[in-house]
Amino acid sequence: MKPRSLALATDLYELTMAAAYFCKDIRSEATFELFVRELPPQRRFLVVAGIEQALEYLAELRFSQEDIDYLQQHPSFRAVPQAFFDYLEGFRFEGEVWAMPEGTVAFANEPLVRVTAPILQAQIVETFLLATINFQTMIASKAARVVAAARGRPVIEFGSRRAHGSEAAMYAARAAYIGGCTGTSNVEAGLRFGIPTFGTIAHSWVMSFDDELTAFKGYMEVFPTTTTLLIDTYDTVAAAKKIVSAGLKPQAVRLDSGDLASLSREVREILDAGGLTATRIFASGDLDEYRIAELLLQGAPVDAFGVGTRLSTSADAPNLGGVYKLVEVAADHERKARVKTSPGKVTLPGRKQVWRVTTPEGVYEGDWIALADEERPTSHAQPLLRLMIKDGHRIEPQQETREIQERALANLAHLPEALRSLEAGPGLPVRATARLLAEQQRIAARCLGR
Amino acid sequence: MKPRSLALATDLYELTMAAAYFCKDIRSEATFELFVRELPPQRRFLVVAGIEQALEYLAELRFSQEDIDYLQQHPSFRAVPQAFFDYLEGFRFEGEVWAMPEGTVAFANEPLVRVTAPILQAQIVETFLLATINFQTMIASKAARVVAAARGRPVIEFGSRRAHGSEAAMYAARAAYIGGCTGTSNVEAGLRFGIPTFGTIAHSWVMSFDDELTAFKGYMEVFPTTTTLLIDTYDTVAAAKKIVSAGLKPQAVRLDSGDLASLSREVREILDAGGLTATRIFASGDLDEYRIAELLLQGAPVDAFGVGTRLSTSADAPNLGGVYKLVEVAADHERKARVKTSPGKVTLPGRKQVWRVTTPEGVYEGDWIALADEERPTSHAQPLLRLMIKDGHRIEPQQETREIQERALANLAHLPEALRSLEAGPGLPVRATARLLAEQQRIAARCLGR
Repeated sequence: MKPRSLALATDLYELTMAAAYFCKDIRSEATFELFVRELPPQRRFLVVAGIEQALEYLAELRFSQEDIDYLQQHPSFRAVPQAFFDYLEGFRFEGEVWAMPEGTVAFANEPLVRVTAPILQAQIVETFLLATINFQTMIASKAARVVAAARGRPVIEFGSRRAHGSEAAMYAARAAYIGGCTGTSNVEAGLRFGIPTFGTIAHSWVMSFDDELTAFKGYMEVFPTTTTLLIDTYDTVAAAKKIVSAGLKPQAVRLDSGDLASLSREVREILDAGGLTATRIFASGDLDEYRIAELLLQGAPVDAFGVGTRLSTSADAPNLGGVYKLVEVAADHERKARVKTSPGKVTLPGRKQVWRVTTPEGVYEGDWIALADEERPTSHAQPLLRLMIKDGHRIEPQQETREIQERALANLAHLPEALRSLEAGPGLPVRATARLLAEQQRIAARCLGR
Repeated sequence: MKPRSLALATDLYELTMAAAYFCKDIRSEATFELFVRELPPQRRFLVVAGIEQALEYLAELRFSQEDIDYLQQHPSFRAVPQAFFDYLEGFRFEGEVWAMPEGTVAFANEPLVRVTAPILQAQIVETFLLATINFQTMIASKAARVVAAARGRPVIEFGSRRAHGSEAAMYAARAAYIGGCTGTSNVEAGLRFGIPTFGTIAHSWVMSFDDELTAFKGYMEVFPTTTTLLIDTYDTVAAAKKIVSAGLKPQAVRLDSGDLASLSREVREILDAGGLTATRIFASGDLDEYRIAELLLQGAPVDAFGVGTRLSTSADAPNLGGVYKLVEVAADHERKARVKTSPGKVTLPGRKQVWRVTTPEGVYEGDWIALADEERPTSHAQPLLRLMIKDGHRIEPQQETREIQERALANLAHLPEALRSLEAGPGLPVRATARLLAEQQRIAARCLGR
């Protein structure tokens, strides 16, 4: 397929506003911040992901001739002068970007990304940044819960076929790995991000033979040491018995339907009685963190989990409401902080930093949202936003996906116990500094007063 | 960004099974069918979409050298002989594909796609086909409901920023248009699929000015005839009054927060009293079919709707459980139908056709699933699956997205009234023919008997 040009992977109004800024000769420097107003009720923290793809997009953003031709013939751009299209030809993002490193644990209202650039440039990147970071952060956050529920047993992301298209499948695999999954079935994610990939066999392999045992034997001849046999195509228990009788020694067997708790027990007994104590039991089939917790509570002897649909679509909270809001406009060396006052959507003004406070025992205690030029709010607080792009160029090297996962796991280990449980409840306390709150009140009063 | 090679956009087991088929010298011709076992409780029909991208993928599928190198160094492929990788170098899909044309209304258990090819080829395309068709069909089906709820008022898809990444945003826009939306805000979808694109202004435009009215005027100078002003940044009613007092004549105003029913009435009165009877009211903000129906029931004078997150992620049913199942294997001129007997997942064997029966009044009455070589079940029944790819080549010309939308709208118009309502309930009656059921029983008994 034709490679995509991402300059048009945006909402039309980003580009009409760009034209309007250009035509009105507005070159102010603007700061936007990306944050999530409210976490879904089933989430107590976020695991930040998607920053790498956002930075890559910002650094490489260009308009192709086809993009420009398309806009020129668009009815909305009929009155826009040629100079704007000439400008697009040479367009590149020249701003500054601060972001939380991927794998950081974050909470509601905290800026995950802060973009400062000429307003036109900072504006048009909104849609792509949101789609990218909302999605991957949602999946990484879901994965962290699923992995926690599995209590040390490997979880493999298996959801490509139900993801929202093939690109979503690949990025879901990446984000799930960041959130703590051991690997994925998605091969493209393996190639692109160096993530371990795993697989078993499909029902179709078994069904393509006249006989189930012949199917099992055939596969193990080709993959003698790495085979996980899928045993539920016809009758799970009968299949386990056949494996033992035939003297096959698969690395694992996979259960994909039926009552997984009782089937896993029956199968474990059959395997053990047959001397196959080293053969692991792999379970899949409509799993998520709740179902895994239930299975383990029932004592199901499952050694690893394949989690598909409900992970790759974050089925219980299938969208994350990240927003990208203007917080400051600077023109003629004067910076003006901005606030939106729509009901329920009041924003915090100005360029900000997020500070994390940890107890002496190493448990996250709470975060502060402060203006970027404020002092460290307490002596031990650590800043979470880092400078990632300066003058349009990336200044932090790209990280290995494995290193990002390590950061996520380290962050998660510092969370208070309650936040890592599956129960609904509040996240970490996040407070705005006194100076930030005073600034918000001052500006909101001015906006509403007009 | 680097163009993707879609050959690896699949689950690892598709490729290990391919290696196993290759190594075991299994060249049987297999038929797989893609169908949805059960519709989500909130859906009474599907609008088929994503077929175009699936056909494009099948016709263009190739392995790059990078793909092959990746597989060769993969731990799972360590024991696989070089001949397999040589085969992948020359790989192309050479099979036959039948599919329902996009825009067709379909129901549970009906094959939407049927693939017949050498089993290796038919197998490895599973993941991509499922991800693509599950996703777009889910969105088109959701869009049809949202559009029905709007009762003739235009619905614009606005959900790119919450879609599952930027590619999902583009295909969600396509599928939403197929399902009946008037257009989208996604510019890439406009370019790629010729879909009308629309936009308003963002809160940031308003906030970038010291004064709301200056922001409105500035934008209208650049876009004098096509402007929709967003009026909820600070105070919706006050903004409407300012527009009237200033003598601005926007094409529309947009409400994006607060109580849309009462605000739309207040704003309508202000506009009408100021002579702006031609200025339309556009509503957005967490809308879906239920919320739109409620607003219209309350008599809200809204002229058009922008529907975002809940449409682009099908939030109330965020995944569609399409599956791709082996139904027949043919080797040495003998065709053997296949059935899977896992609990709750028993399949229908053999190559099939779907037939639709319409009443003399033009209302869809019910569908038949039949073996492909059965006679037309009733004299008026119409077959839904069409031959799309033969010997690996596309034989139907690509359709304009507008034509696909027309088919969907025509199909939807034939649905019984109850199915088009928002209430949960059954879909159209879908029956398997007597011959098909007998075949299923015969094969299932044989499989379980072994």
